[in-house]
Parts: sequence; structure tokens; C-alpha cells
Amino acid sequence: MDCDLLITNGLLKTPNNPNPSPDQPGFVAVLGGRIIEIAPMTELPDEVRSARVIDAEGGLVMPGLVNCHNHAAMTLFRGLADDLPLMSWLQEHIFPAEAKFVDPEMVYWCVKLAAAEMIISGTTTVADGYFYEDEAAQAFKDAGIRAIAAQGVIDFPAPGVPDPADNINHAARFIEKWRDDNLITPAIFCHSPYTCSAETIRGAKELTRQEDCLFFIHVSETESEVAESLKRHGISPIRHLEQLGVLDKKTVLVHCVWLDDEDIRIVKETGAGVVSCPESNMKLAAGVAPQDSFIEASIPVGLGTDSCASNNNLDMFREMTVAAKLAKVHRLNPTLLPARQVVKMATSGGAAVLGLQGEIGELTVGSLADIVIIDLRKPHLNPMYEADSLLAYAASGSDVRASIIGGRLVMDDYRLKTIDLPEVVGKVNEMARQVRAGT
Amino acid sequence: MDCDLLITNGLLKTPNNPNPSPDQPGFVAVLGGRIIEIAPMTELPDEVRSARVIDAEGGLVMPGLVNCHNHAAMTLFRGLADDLPLMSWLQEHIFPAEAKFVDPEMVYWCVKLAAAEMIISGTTTVADGYFYEDEAAQAFKDAGIRAIAAQGVIDFPAPGVPDPADNINHAARFIEKWRDDNLITPAIFCHSPYTCSAETIRGAKELTRQEDCLFFIHVSETESEVAESLKRHGISPIRHLEQLGVLDKKTVLVHCVWLDDEDIRIVKETGAGVVSCPESNMKLAAGVAPQDSFIEASIPVGLGTDSCASNNNLDMFREMTVAAKLAKVHRLNPTLLPARQVVKMATSGGAAVLGLQGEIGELTVGSLADIVIIDLRKPHLNPMYEADSLLAYAASGSDVRASIIGGRLVMDDYRLKTIDLPEVVGKVNEMARQVRAGT
Repeated sequence: MDCDLLITNGLLKTPNNPNPSPDQPGFVAVLGGRIIEIAPMTELPDEVRSARVIDAEGGLVMPGLVNCHNHAAMTLFRGLADDLPLMSWLQEHIFPAEAKFVDPEMVYWCVKLAAAEMIISGTTTVADGYFYEDEAAQAFKDAGIRAIAAQGVIDFPAPGVPDPADNINHAARFIEKWRDDNLITPAIFCHSPYTCSAETIRGAKELTRQEDCLFFIHVSETESEVAESLKRHGISPIRHLEQLGVLDKKTVLVHCVWLDDEDIRIVKETGAGVVSCPESNMKLAAGVAPQDSFIEASIPVGLGTDSCASNNNLDMFREMTVAAKLAKVHRLNPTLLPARQVVKMATSGGAAVLGLQGEIGELTVGSLADIVIIDLRKPHLNPMYEADSLLAYAASGSDVRASIIGGRLVMDDYRLKTIDLPEVVGKVNEMARQVRAGT
Repeated sequence: MDCDLLITNGLLKTPNNPNPSPDQPGFVAVLGGRIIEIAPMTELPDEVRSARVIDAEGGLVMPGLVNCHNHAAMTLFRGLADDLPLMSWLQEHIFPAEAKFVDPEMVYWCVKLAAAEMIISGTTTVADGYFYEDEAAQAFKDAGIRAIAAQGVIDFPAPGVPDPADNINHAARFIEKWRDDNLITPAIFCHSPYTCSAETIRGAKELTRQEDCLFFIHVSETESEVAESLKRHGISPIRHLEQLGVLDKKTVLVHCVWLDDEDIRIVKETGAGVVSCPESNMKLAAGVAPQDSFIEASIPVGLGTDSCASNNNLDMFREMTVAAKLAKVHRLNPTLLPARQVVKMATSGGAAVLGLQGEIGELTVGSLADIVIIDLRKPHLNPMYEADSLLAYAASGSDVRASIIGGRLVMDDYRLKTIDLPEVVGKVNEMARQVRAGT
């Protein structure tokens, strides 16, 4: 057998064997960026030629995590303003800081810091949306992390798009540039129904249809947003988007906290995906999304951290544990969102939302080799009765020992291989000094 | 200056300077288990004789965290049964497993595993309650972690106490044995008002009064517990405890999820402390404790992880972030439980609940040297605008690089100095194999 990368002695978490036994370790072989073989160690061929061999040493080998919502550049604003009323946070702190400090260099370096944080904590694919997304895409590519990079569209003057009349054309040029990349998939992020006109939303969706791209939008994040929509349009934000004809399988609805039964029925019928960001929704006191209802309706649901301005970290393991626990206490029902369900949301569920089912989110032959190895020697990861329980309720991003994306080893033995971390931290902290001085 | 331990080049988080600047690193000197000096590096005497010097390398030096509620031995049951209705979880899984597998050896090794997990994640003091607490206390002592070790009292046959009529005497012998230890403080944990008779509760409290010990009790964890109390006693569990005369400054009330305004007033007046366990309450779908109301009433409030059977980890950083976020979303008010408040709950607030204010929970001259160093080089800990925000919303237990308890270095450069981790993990996993086979 010839391969580029061989992972040995791992507990392989596959769809057919979600709870691998320590007594039956296995191997994963990777060639040309894809998984070509998964089998018990007892079946490892005598002659294997591999450019690289990683001994998992009994670690859990699983698909990398899929973070379905981020504004990665906002690592610069991590902890800049917390514990404030939503409008004061946004209008007095975040918007002014963005107007003053967001430029191409800021986006590049702050996205790289986010990429480092994500790779270290086991995320191998991220769906990002921001301005200067061209620089974001470049930073993701340089870091070696898979990204759906979505150019922001909003009806206000925005960083890099001073004239809102140019916002769709700007996005079109961005998509054109990144269309054929093997790691970066371009898309559009329409900010929201309350910051984008009907014309902008329709135009952006039309462009993504022509280009076969994903269309993201924040929707129904707060109760007041829904009230405002009822006042302006006489209908909920979801019904408004439906009337605009933009809901389909390539539309991703982010937050969806305040959906009623009819909204959920519409989302289900149109095939749109939903991204839940429980930690951000909690921190901003937006509310609790009815994740259990989405799952019951068989709507594709992924998890997202949202940005470091409202979380303030990008650890998808935390997002899993909080998602599972929040759903339970919200309905006072401990059986909701069981461990296997949140692990699915953070892997194959997220992949489905992003239209990448079968490509990422599962450890299967033929999939892209987006793989992480969890170090099971940590005290808090013992004993292990069930891998899903351990991942959902005990593990944290810092338990990830190695990360592989598209067959490329981007972190090995806790060390980043693609990013000069001291350089990135130095650059971002220099910018943070300016933020501190200027706000 | 002569000292046992000198920490240099740290950002010192003290009560007077909760947000230390990277531009002004300092040092901490420890002698005889206590902090004897805290000052900027510029004031470090030319001649210092110290048995050991730790270079914090720009890390955040802060008080160790105080975990106010645990049943440490239950690490054995981490992930054994999740996502189940409360009564099925307890009666069909946890109680039978406890009846079958809890013995002195199990308690010793499983507590040691918990101690390893706690030390690694920055906890330096834990309030524990279980059976065979003598073995638990020994394990804590051997691990070098400070503990309030409370012998469990319940009106059923329990591990180590087959005859409930002996439960108070058993606890008395335990207190007698550990009364003069410098690391372990003995106490009593009466399980709850619904599992202990009025006579047992009064008797246990009487003993703790004689011995000047803390008296712990689970109370008002679930809505049904309150309903049951109303049915049996015509009053809430808190009023029941008040009528029994057991509420005072040395009583610690664990959970307190379903307290009404009158309950809160009673707790306030009696001076009892409250421990909130948000992750456990979420996972078991018990409800959301009104932490903001306790704080408004100036009731001492600490945070606890509860046991690994209902969390399933002992990371106090997670508990902080979840506490802060849950309070906000519960009341739809993002200003509740700000970062500084949850950091306080996990440090000096917890110390006050346990009657150790001034001794632990603050980095001050004269305090016990219970200190942890946070490694600020991690990507998710940059930038740092405010230390409390970073600790509450971005940091995790794995960012703790060194832990010092009573002046003793128990973890250095991420390595445990007092525990043979592979030995402990091996022992517990051997027991887990029996649990798996026997349940």
C-alpha cells in the first residue's frame, strides 16, 4: 500500500463504530488528500510506503470539527467590551472599533490568529463571513484550514466597500477570484434582513445562484428583530426571506433563536440549513434557539462559535457541551440534544449545512482527510464508557493533539506546523495596543 | 530576602490591580506556605535566597480556583449514563453502580484522579462530600490539594455506613481524625432534606456546631423537590431547614435552584452560603439558579462543578463561562453576572462560602500561597484587554501552567509533581472495566 500519511494505533470513530473500543485500535491511510483505507491494526499490510506515519498512541481519531459561523477577524475585539446591553455593545463599542481599525492587514493577521485557535482546538472547516474577505481567505489558505469564506454584504458603507451600491459587485469579484481554490470556497454573507434591503437580499441570492455558492444571513437573532420585522413588513423575518424567494438548500440561516412553528415549517420545506450559536446567544442574552425543534423537523443543523467579540473563544468542544446542556435546561428535559446529537451537529451535521456532506464530517473511505486526534491520556478523559459522551461533556479543544486538513498535517504533537504563532500574536497585540489607545 | 518559593515576571492579579498590565510584571515571594511579598519586578531585592524560583514568563499569576461542590470519587461514573430522565439516571444507573462499586479503594483512586484533573485545571481548593470520606481526604492530602472533606450523612444504608443509625457517629469519628490537618478540613454533608429526617439534620448540625465545622446540604435542586416539601411539610425546603434551626454562617446550601423571594430573604438573614452548579443543573435539567438575586442580596455565592456523573468535568473555567452566560440568557439581560463577578465567585466568593476569606481566593500578602499561573501565549488568550474577561470567557483549565498549594509546587510546566498519573488512570480504568461488565 502506498500513501501520503498513515495514522496508526488509533481508536477510530467511524459512522459504523461511533464508540471504538481501546482493545481494537486501527489505522487510517491517506492519499491525495483523501482517506483511502480505514481498518483494524491487525489488517495493516506488511508493506506500507507512507511519506509520514503518525502514531496515535491510543488516541481517538475522529473527523475534524466544523465551525459553521464565525467572523474570524474579530479576534482583535476579543474581550474589548463585555456584559453590556446589546445596542450599547454594538453601537458604542463594536461598530466604532470596526470603522476605525478594520483594514486588509488587520483582517489578514487577526484571521490568522483565529485560524491558529481553531486548528489547535480541532476545527478543520470554518464558515466565515466578514469584510475584506479576500484577505481572510488568504489567511485561511496560508494557515491550511478549510474555509467557506463569505464576503459581507450590507446596505451601509462597510470596510473595503465604502459605497453600498457596489456591495454585490464587490462580492462577485471576490467569488470570481476564489472560485477554483481547493481549500477555500467563496460565498456571500448578507448581514441580515434588517440591515439589507429586499433588493440587496434578492441581488445577493441571485449572484450565489449563478455561481452555485452558499448564501448566509443572520436571522431572528433577537426578539426585538422579530418585532421590528412585524412592524415593517407585517411578517416574521423568516417569512420575509421566504417572500423574497431566497430560501433554498444553499441558504444558511444563522442564529434562528426566535422562530415560531410556522417559521420552522417554512425552513423545513425550503431545505435551508440552520446554524445555532448557543454561547454567543447566551452572552448577548439574545435567547435560546429551539434546536430540538429543528432536529425533530429534520432540518440540517450545525453549530457555530460566532465571533470572539461575542463568545469569546472559538472552541467547538465548548460549543457542543453548552448546546447540549442549554437545550436540556431550557425545556427542563434532560433527554434533549443527547451527546451523539451535538457531536453530529459539530461534524456531519455542520457538513450538511455547508453542502459538504460526504466530503467532510465523517471518518469514511473516500472522504477528504480532515482528521483530528484526541489525546485520551488526560485525567478528565478517563474513564471512557462512550466516545460521544466524552467529546460532548468532558473534552475540550486543548485535548486535540494533531490536526490534518486535506491530508496535510497542520498540527502535530500540539505544535502548529503552518503558522508562526509568536509572529501572529505579536502582530495582533500591536493592533490591540492601538485599539486600547484609540477607544 | 529569604523565601521558599519566588515567582518572577508575572502579571499579578491582585485585589488592588485586577487587570495587571503586561508592561509592569511583578514577583510573589512565599515563605512557610504563605505569601510574604507582592511587588513589581523593579522592586525585587538584589539579594533573594529562594529554594525555588519559577519564571512566569509574562503569565497571569492569580489565586487558585475554589470548587465549592464535588463528589470527587464519582470520576468513576463519568459518562456512564447521560441524557436520561433524572429519576431513571439516579435510580437505574447511579445508585446501583454506587451500591456495587463504591469501596475504600475505589474512593481513594477515583478521588486521586479527580485531584489530578482539578490541579491541572487550576483548582487549588475543593469542597467535597461523599462516603468513605476518610479515603477521599487521604487522596486529597497525598495529591497536595486543599480540601474541605465532608463525610456524607443519609438515612439509607450507605457505602461504609451500612446502618443509618450510625451515620452521625461515623461522621464524628471522621471529624475527630482529620481535625488538626493543615490541608484537609473535615465537615459533614447531609445529603438533602428529602433523604434525611429532621432528627438526622438536627443531629448532624449539632455535631458541626460542637466541632466548629461546616455543614453542607443539597437543597431545592429540582422543582419536584420543592413540591414534595410543600406536600410533606407545608413549607419550602429552605423554610424547613430554617425551622430545624440549621441555617447559619457555617451552613452551605448547594444548588438553590428553586428559591422564591422569601427563601432568599431567609438565606440572607441567616448568613448561610450558597453554591451554584450551573453545568450540573443544566445537564440534569434541574433549572437555573437565581444567581443574580443571591448576589443582589449580598449572599456569599460560590461555584461548584458537582460530580463527574452530572457535568462531566471538573474544569472551573468552564463553570465560570457557563455561569456568566446562563444568567444572562435566563433573564435576557446581558449585564448580569459580568466577568469580574464570576471570577470572584470562583475565587474569593467561594472562599467566603467556605469560611476561608482572607486565607484563600486572593493574591494578598499574608494569604495562603494557593496560586496558579496562566500561560498567556495561547492564541485564544490574545489580545488581553481585561484579565477578568479573558478568564471568564476565553480561558480554559488547560491554560494553567503551574499550580502552587500552600506554597508547594503541585504542577510545574503542565506536569503534575504529586501524582503518578499513568498509575492513577490505570487503576481507575481497571475499575471502569468492572463497571462496564457489571452494569
